[in-house]
Amino acid sequence: MPLTELAVLDRGFVKLVDHMGSDLSVVNAARVSFGKRKEVYDEADGKLIAYLAEHDHTSPFRHTAMTFHVKAPIFVFRQWMKHRISSEFNEISGRYVEFPEDEFFVPETFRRQAKVNKQGSEGTVEGDAGDQAHAIFLETCRSAVAQYKKLIGLGVCREQARCILPLGLYSEVYWTVSLQAAAHFIRLRTDAHAQWEIQQYAHAVRRMVEELYPNALKALLENARP
Amino acid sequence: MPLTELAVLDRGFVKLVDHMGSDLSVVNAARVSFGKRKEVYDEADGKLIAYLAEHDHTSPFRHTAMTFHVKAPIFVFRQWMKHRISSEFNEISGRYVEFPEDEFFVPETFRRQAKVNKQGSEGTVEGDAGDQAHAIFLETCRSAVAQYKKLIGLGVCREQARCILPLGLYSEVYWTVSLQAAAHFIRLRTDAHAQWEIQQYAHAVRRMVEELYPNALKALLENARP
Amino acid sequence: MPLTELAVLDRGFVKLVDHMGSDLSVVNAARVSFGKRKEVYDEADGKLIAYLAEHDHTSPFRHTAMTFHVKAPIFVFRQWMKHRISSEFNEISGRYVEFPEDEFFVPETFRRQAKVNKQGSEGTVEGDAGDQAHAIFLETCRSAVAQYKKLIGLGVCREQARCILPLGLYSEVYWTVSLQAAAHFIRLRTDAHAQWEIQQYAHAVRRMVEELYPNALKALLENARP
Amino acid sequence: MPLTELAVLDRGFVKLVDHMGSDLSVVNAARVSFGKRKEVYDEADGKLIAYLAEHDHTSPFRHTAMTFHVKAPIFVFRQWMKHRISSEFNEISGRYVEFPEDEFFVPETFRRQAKVNKQGSEGTVEGDAGDQAHAIFLETCRSAVAQYKKLIGLGVCREQARCILPLGLYSEVYWTVSLQAAAHFIRLRTDAHAQWEIQQYAHAVRRMVEELYPNALKALLENARP
Repeated sequence: MPLTELAVLDRGFVKLVDHMGSDLSVVNAARVSFGKRKEVYDEADGKLIAYLAEHDHTSPFRHTAMTFHVKAPIFVFRQWMKHRISSEFNEISGRYVEFPEDEFFVPETFRRQAKVNKQGSEGTVEGDAGDQAHAIFLETCRSAVAQYKKLIGLGVCREQARCILPLGLYSEVYWTVSLQAAAHFIRLRTDAHAQWEIQQYAHAVRRMVEELYPNALKALLENARP
Repeated sequence: MPLTELAVLDRGFVKLVDHMGSDLSVVNAARVSFGKRKEVYDEADGKLIAYLAEHDHTSPFRHTAMTFHVKAPIFVFRQWMKHRISSEFNEISGRYVEFPEDEFFVPETFRRQAKVNKQGSEGTVEGDAGDQAHAIFLETCRSAVAQYKKLIGLGVCREQARCILPLGLYSEVYWTVSLQAAAHFIRLRTDAHAQWEIQQYAHAVRRMVEELYPNALKALLENARP
Repeated sequence: MPLTELAVLDRGFVKLVDHMGSDLSVVNAARVSFGKRKEVYDEADGKLIAYLAEHDHTSPFRHTAMTFHVKAPIFVFRQWMKHRISSEFNEISGRYVEFPEDEFFVPETFRRQAKVNKQGSEGTVEGDAGDQAHAIFLETCRSAVAQYKKLIGLGVCREQARCILPLGLYSEVYWTVSLQAAAHFIRLRTDAHAQWEIQQYAHAVRRMVEELYPNALKALLENARP
Repeated sequence: MPLTELAVLDRGFVKLVDHMGSDLSVVNAARVSFGKRKEVYDEADGKLIAYLAEHDHTSPFRHTAMTFHVKAPIFVFRQWMKHRISSEFNEISGRYVEFPEDEFFVPETFRRQAKVNKQGSEGTVEGDAGDQAHAIFLETCRSAVAQYKKLIGLGVCREQARCILPLGLYSEVYWTVSLQAAAHFIRLRTDAHAQWEIQQYAHAVRRMVEELYPNALKALLENARP
């Protein structure tokens, strides 16, 4: 049975909603160039897929589609949505929906600011400092949600009240994407330079895509730039 | 059984290769905005679909995909490929493949140049003139293909020899497209101002899309601009 | 002198960084269809532009470009970035940069939740309730920023610490967009159903675009769907 | 004075119509990430540009735009228009315009079909065979145009009559493109595997882009995959 749901972070998930095609779809889209079509995937197709990926002939990989339902913190979606090519997103709206309590991300461990790489992190914040960080983080998010509820209670519209909610708040998204675009997302976001939190989502997506298009995904990832 | 193949013009076709989703996919993509999801399509969903289309909320209609295999004359594909949003194309290559004989489009009737609309046609070229037109058309295309074969025989590469082939030559394409983009293609290309030949393809596509997403397509077409 | 900067909300702005073309560029891109080109814009061009907009021939409007530098709250950018067609964004990164104090949006007046339109607002929260809302809002955002600074002080990396910052935080973006895509943004986001805060940005963008492509923008907005 | 026009093939050209930005635009779009902006391009910017290109941070390269007016044979445009990302095209229409005589491409030399690479060419068709090929090519195109004129004379509409015109016919296009997309076009189409005829256009585009964004283009091309 294919993998259709994986838990990610403390409250998130990636679910496969639907998909179109298989490794064979890539091969058949490519073979239209020389007027051929196959019903069963075989060894020769593996060679063709490898050739396409090596030579940057990416269009056959886009005759595929997957829809995922994802729950992730807003700061993760802000990175995710930079991937716009062959990607469609529909997100839960904070104008319609009142946010429930405790639906924010809390890190299990806090990482230290990296010294050389200005945008990265390294090691962990240990001991007392770590405990303090955890308490501050949790308290600030809880308080923000409580104050948000008070604003709603005072009659303030949801679209304004949400301004005080934290960037770690969970949201939900429908994401429809071609295999090529999914592979690009996986490549960039499983990279060690990506933020650890989005890496966890990228690994989950990778595990699901691997079951659907194993050979095509392998070829795309192997032939990516170093 | 769903409609999976239609003949178009004298030698063309539209075949449905694969698709993802149904009317329900559109509804569920939209409902993620307010955190809901359904398993069965019902009457309320029809209202939601109509509302989305009326208010130009088009993103839910893009969580769908279809792949078609199309055989059409090159001048038709040149119009078709102007539709680039949410569309992927893979085409047979005249660099790889030697074109067979008699694979060009021949009109059954010739239309007269329109007088007011500079880009249109009206009425038909009748009688002797029509017969002459038919003879000229057929002879010119046949001759071009025969001369192409001679060039190939002289050792000329296919990529240069094809320069003398006519724009009415048939080609084949894999086309992957979202429902929204398919509806846009149908709307513009079934319009009376579109060239008659591409209208025939647009009607074929419409008949196939209608079976896959009947309510969503109807809503998109009804709410299009006049 | 053209308008190159407008203040928006309490701390935001829209600045015009660069642009390419004028009404004449639209006309010349359209006239390539019939093999013509002009050096000076005249009355006949106004008719052509109106015709193009009326008949949904939008491609000539995309042979133009503008780059804006925008400072806006994150929740505004989250709506803005749904406009992805012919749009490019580069945003300040909370992984690189430590956020300064007091750089969050504070509404002058709070609007009430609308009763019928679930995603809208109507009227204002007056009197004591309004004062309380203001105090809660300001205090929650200030506190979040203060706690963020504490997390940074404890050695927590910026990419994690920012999770507790509010959605009303200001960010900065470079936005490059074609005239057609800018007109689409203006049309949807100056609409009364758009959130009031993004409407203010859409009006600012409109005033700047109007000076650059007055006739083309007018035609695009007049021929939009009702 | 910048390079604004280059002749290509026997009757084609590439003209620069307009452009937006410079190397500095790329740098400033990137620097918005860490909240900085410069007025003059200096050595440090060269390092930043190299870093961006090396690490596949391509979005800053898209805050630029160029419009070209290109005259090329239809089979060249069919390859060109596969480059759809950040590219806009407007083409002369064979429905509006009656084609003039002798506006088709005639190769100076004919290349031989390659034996190993099925889609390539190698060496030239020499001597008698070459002369015959030239005569066949020229005669077939001339005849097709003459027969096209006869169809028009019989009252046949332009949109049907053009079906017998050859793929080597010249057309004209307005092309608006970002620097990143132009670099991608240059990289793929100056490659030895591209058809020789489109290589000539890609070299012309390269010479013009080099004058507008010398450092940014260099960085993008150097860091391309081998």
